[in-house]
Amino acid sequence: MAERYYLGIDLGGTNIKAGIVTETAKVLSKLSVTTDAECGPDHVLSRMCEAGEEAIKQSGISIQDVTAIGVGAPGALSHKKGIIIAPPNLPGWKNVPVRDYVSRYFNKPATLDNDANAAAWGEYWAGAGRGKSSLVMFTLGTGVGGGIVYDGKFLRGHYDTAAELGHIIVEPNGKRCNCGQIGCLEIYASAINSAKIATEELKAGRKSSMQEELSAGKLITTEIILNHKLKGDSYAEEIWNRTCRYIAIGCVSMDHVINAEIIVLAGGMVAAGEYLLKPVQKFYQELQGPVFGNNSGKIVLAELGNDAGFVGAAGAAKLCEEVGSFSGL
Amino acid sequence: MAERYYLGIDLGGTNIKAGIVTETAKVLSKLSVTTDAECGPDHVLSRMCEAGEEAIKQSGISIQDVTAIGVGAPGALSHKKGIIIAPPNLPGWKNVPVRDYVSRYFNKPATLDNDANAAAWGEYWAGAGRGKSSLVMFTLGTGVGGGIVYDGKFLRGHYDTAAELGHIIVEPNGKRCNCGQIGCLEIYASAINSAKIATEELKAGRKSSMQEELSAGKLITTEIILNHKLKGDSYAEEIWNRTCRYIAIGCVSMDHVINAEIIVLAGGMVAAGEYLLKPVQKFYQELQGPVFGNNSGKIVLAELGNDAGFVGAAGAAKLCEEVGSFSGL
Repeated sequence: MAERYYLGIDLGGTNIKAGIVTETAKVLSKLSVTTDAECGPDHVLSRMCEAGEEAIKQSGISIQDVTAIGVGAPGALSHKKGIIIAPPNLPGWKNVPVRDYVSRYFNKPATLDNDANAAAWGEYWAGAGRGKSSLVMFTLGTGVGGGIVYDGKFLRGHYDTAAELGHIIVEPNGKRCNCGQIGCLEIYASAINSAKIATEELKAGRKSSMQEELSAGKLITTEIILNHKLKGDSYAEEIWNRTCRYIAIGCVSMDHVINAEIIVLAGGMVAAGEYLLKPVQKFYQELQGPVFGNNSGKIVLAELGNDAGFVGAAGAAKLCEEVGSFSGL
Repeated sequence: MAERYYLGIDLGGTNIKAGIVTETAKVLSKLSVTTDAECGPDHVLSRMCEAGEEAIKQSGISIQDVTAIGVGAPGALSHKKGIIIAPPNLPGWKNVPVRDYVSRYFNKPATLDNDANAAAWGEYWAGAGRGKSSLVMFTLGTGVGGGIVYDGKFLRGHYDTAAELGHIIVEPNGKRCNCGQIGCLEIYASAINSAKIATEELKAGRKSSMQEELSAGKLITTEIILNHKLKGDSYAEEIWNRTCRYIAIGCVSMDHVINAEIIVLAGGMVAAGEYLLKPVQKFYQELQGPVFGNNSGKIVLAELGNDAGFVGAAGAAKLCEEVGSFSGL
């Protein structure tokens, strides 16, 4: 039998990524175009499909060779209905039937998943989670997202909003999150919020070599924090460790809930590599007691970078085909 | 075909419960004997099997009619290996092969699960979760336990220690739990710890009608706290609400992780009925923002009481038979 091919499309607020992935998770083509979210859903849906066509072309196959299509997109969305409900970073989108649009355009079965879930599936299928039975993934970027693969399946939840790991409560009397809730992990562990807290504390007069950056009008980022920490600034060290400890708290709690074989750290902050991983592993060990395992080696860095989304979306299409759960065409 | 029967055995630190349950979750017999944990594993294993024989006898069937046996027992345990590893409330037990012992005694396939997981399965199969796709259960008693049923299956975890919901971290700079970890839900939401915190605060001089109980040498319990709250004591109200808010925090976080169809509150504290349920639902609503659902009606009380353990163990045996996963005989 000829090899099977899947088209994966990763819709982001800024870019659309698309690629052709084989049934053995080999990437044949990949490309990225701007989303132009401000032009509205119709325009963006067209761009998604054009990006898909270009990915097919670049891979040297034809649309007839594609078995199915997977789309990853920002939530809130409904996997069951195949619609994007109301994503904060796609203004003006409301109940857009993405799955069926893509399915009709290409005349192929399609499936829609939350982008973080798709990325987790990508790492499970083709990245840091290859050969593992289960994984929990934290995506540490602008916000904190999550994805859970358990027993070879997505854990999507009854209302398709499982694995929103940025919204577990870690500070019961803490700050209010953008989602309206109190004390979310995202407020304390995301790159943006971590930098925001540092900026506030610097403005309040904290002694730090980062004061120069602030005076020069620079936006404090986790990259700047890390740079100053590496140069020996004690406040930068403090805030970096604080962020890593909150990530570790998320890891510990998820270990008690899902008890996956591995925990994968993904997203923009992973650019820090070992400077992220080591302190998270250290705090994970310190927080836990002897009763439960202390295997901090189960925490690993993601391997697919920005490809995880479209690779995972393609893999989700393969999974849907295997379990016969396409509800599109 | 004749109806199938399953023997469920629930091993607790104080009592062993056993019963015969039909394939349609009808309880034909049930009984309880003391565990006599101090007499050691051999003695307790015998008592478990004798209780099982008595349950068979009382149900009017014979051992030949029993299809399989399920055992629920306190953790830490390994479902895969069928052994109890080292439960805090069964002193002297270490790596006891409970599943195979029971299996050989009755010459029937057997399965072993964590008692809280078994109870969650009981509620899913025959109690508050009947007809639901998934549930998360908190057992609120001496400690805080948990069980998760997802997609018609136990969520046991890669190392069999999933759903330890009492050990998610809710106070990152909080007290140390018996498990050695910092800030566990169990420290703030269990009946024992809630009463302990109240006792400490009363001894430190908090004004409350409960001071009389303390002076009379009484042990402060959640029952006493509730009674005084109902009589209008404002400190009792404060501590009751604080406990309920922590339980709600657990519910909110699990909603974001598992997103089950329902959340079941079980264990000794459920004796408080609506006095427990209503405040937990209220705090659940208050904590969450508008982005995620606010359906506090999904939080419900358990229905099976003390029967959940052996009923769920019997149901687990039925499930193992169905999926062909017995590794015993």
